[in-house]
Amino acid sequence: PDPEAIAAATHRDAFLTKPPGALGRLEELAIWYAGWRGTARPRLAAPQVVIFAGNHGVAARGVSAFPPEVTAQMVANFAAGGAAINQLSETFGAAMTVHPIDLDRPTMDFTAQPAMSGAELAAALAIGWNAVDPKADLLIAGEMGIGNTTSASAIAAALYGGDAAGWTGRGTGVGGAALEAKTRIVEEALACHAGALGDPAEVLRRLGGRELAAMAGAILRARHLRIPVILDGFICSAAAAVLERARQGALDHAVAGHVSREAAHGMLLDKLGKAPLLSLDLRLGEGSGAALAIGVLRGALACHSGMASFEEAGVSAG
Amino acid sequence: PDPEAIAAATHRDAFLTKPPGALGRLEELAIWYAGWRGTARPRLAAPQVVIFAGNHGVAARGVSAFPPEVTAQMVANFAAGGAAINQLSETFGAAMTVHPIDLDRPTMDFTAQPAMSGAELAAALAIGWNAVDPKADLLIAGEMGIGNTTSASAIAAALYGGDAAGWTGRGTGVGGAALEAKTRIVEEALACHAGALGDPAEVLRRLGGRELAAMAGAILRARHLRIPVILDGFICSAAAAVLERARQGALDHAVAGHVSREAAHGMLLDKLGKAPLLSLDLRLGEGSGAALAIGVLRGALACHSGMASFEEAGVSAG
Repeated sequence: PDPEAIAAATHRDAFLTKPPGALGRLEELAIWYAGWRGTARPRLAAPQVVIFAGNHGVAARGVSAFPPEVTAQMVANFAAGGAAINQLSETFGAAMTVHPIDLDRPTMDFTAQPAMSGAELAAALAIGWNAVDPKADLLIAGEMGIGNTTSASAIAAALYGGDAAGWTGRGTGVGGAALEAKTRIVEEALACHAGALGDPAEVLRRLGGRELAAMAGAILRARHLRIPVILDGFICSAAAAVLERARQGALDHAVAGHVSREAAHGMLLDKLGKAPLLSLDLRLGEGSGAALAIGVLRGALACHSGMASFEEAGVSAG
Repeated sequence: PDPEAIAAATHRDAFLTKPPGALGRLEELAIWYAGWRGTARPRLAAPQVVIFAGNHGVAARGVSAFPPEVTAQMVANFAAGGAAINQLSETFGAAMTVHPIDLDRPTMDFTAQPAMSGAELAAALAIGWNAVDPKADLLIAGEMGIGNTTSASAIAAALYGGDAAGWTGRGTGVGGAALEAKTRIVEEALACHAGALGDPAEVLRRLGGRELAAMAGAILRARHLRIPVILDGFICSAAAAVLERARQGALDHAVAGHVSREAAHGMLLDKLGKAPLLSLDLRLGEGSGAALAIGVLRGALACHSGMASFEEAGVSAG
């Protein structure tokens, strides 16, 4: 981030027609955004939503309430404009693209072997990297992939330790015996790869999925382009956490858009040191919670960049 | 609300391309809105923000970090487009009007006598009632009035009991000895009017201000017109609470847009049984938190009314 832009934005904030700090988190958000964009008075002109879809070998073990063919069906729904993320992208003025990745070739079942080869991981990271529009001024990475909360749980447990049960939740709707089975599958995955999980990139290769790798690639590219990121839910945050574990501070260009109903998401955001902007019990993925948070960022930037100062307005400061 | 519209909206929600409940509070919000508008697939076309301003006799006792002339100065800032609420109204597509009420004639100091006469209360209520555009499909009532958190604290304590200290906070920025003095002033006000606080309308007349009465009038009018309301912060919520205490369920057409940093606001929302949509440490007033929540409502309605069903999209239900 640009220290001069941060200083100038902080200075500007102090003279706007409001009591100091009265806009709360909107003020931090505007100053953070100003720093990454390198300008004291930024506007949001070109937010981008990139959705990656992948299939998971582990889905064959019944970890989801939905069958694997739903991944491709939902990609068609994204293309036709019928999904939640289509409506939210339109509402908040974001350009949206969808990137299905080898849907007819699921990853390997990571309870028995690495999910991806090194070449497959690299290809998925590159798809994410290339999906980012260099002209975007905000990035949201979303996902679709039946079985991918299981992958996210395994990744979070591998990166931060703790038992599988704590990191495993209902996903899109499993409960009872199915949730117990899902937890055991995460335990199996961790046991299978124990001893090979010291390197975050290796965690992503062994326990991830193509859409998670692509999200990590996109978030990394955004950092290089100084494009601020709003993180979505548990799966997006798990993909992002790989970057943070690989290099501390790698997510300084990202804020947490929301905390989902998946309990592990709140735990993961705590580990990342990020307080969510929204908490509305979403558990959909697709980038939906992050897209909703574009509204909060738009409001923050409109206030920061549009308000009059005390002097301009002739208002007595307190 | 219209039970047929609620039933139809609930039915529609169940078949949209998402796991059941995956949009969390957005789903409740859309169904609530559909019920009040009497249509299963509503859109938000004409949100209205009405801002009322008033001056308070009690401000002369130093309860605010800002001098009383700031009320009129901020009204000029609203008119010129320089305040936070101007930026937020524009961002979220709301029409905004400002209604200063007798600024050169503050209410009486309510630590010694009723803030308003019966005629003054009625006039302020009518200003609020008349400010609502019957063609609006969402209402936000905001306020400006140096000293008005003191009025809101006294009203909340009178309506719900509890000690003055619990209901009194920093407002726009008082602390330390000034906060203790503010708390004593609320105690004085409650003692002065003890025995006359059984009737909520009388609480409003004795401890309120013109802008609080106008907000109550506007929220009441919205109910008659079946216009849903997003409540703003502590002062707006205190004005609204007068209606709820006068008639249980009077705020069923309202949701809480946010919870502010003023601790008493969270307490008051608990009393009203309303969970806030946002929690971003705002403490500005002006309708700002509620205006920001328009984004959440827009997102909820866009998903509800715009998404494809499983059948339309050819997606397998779980």
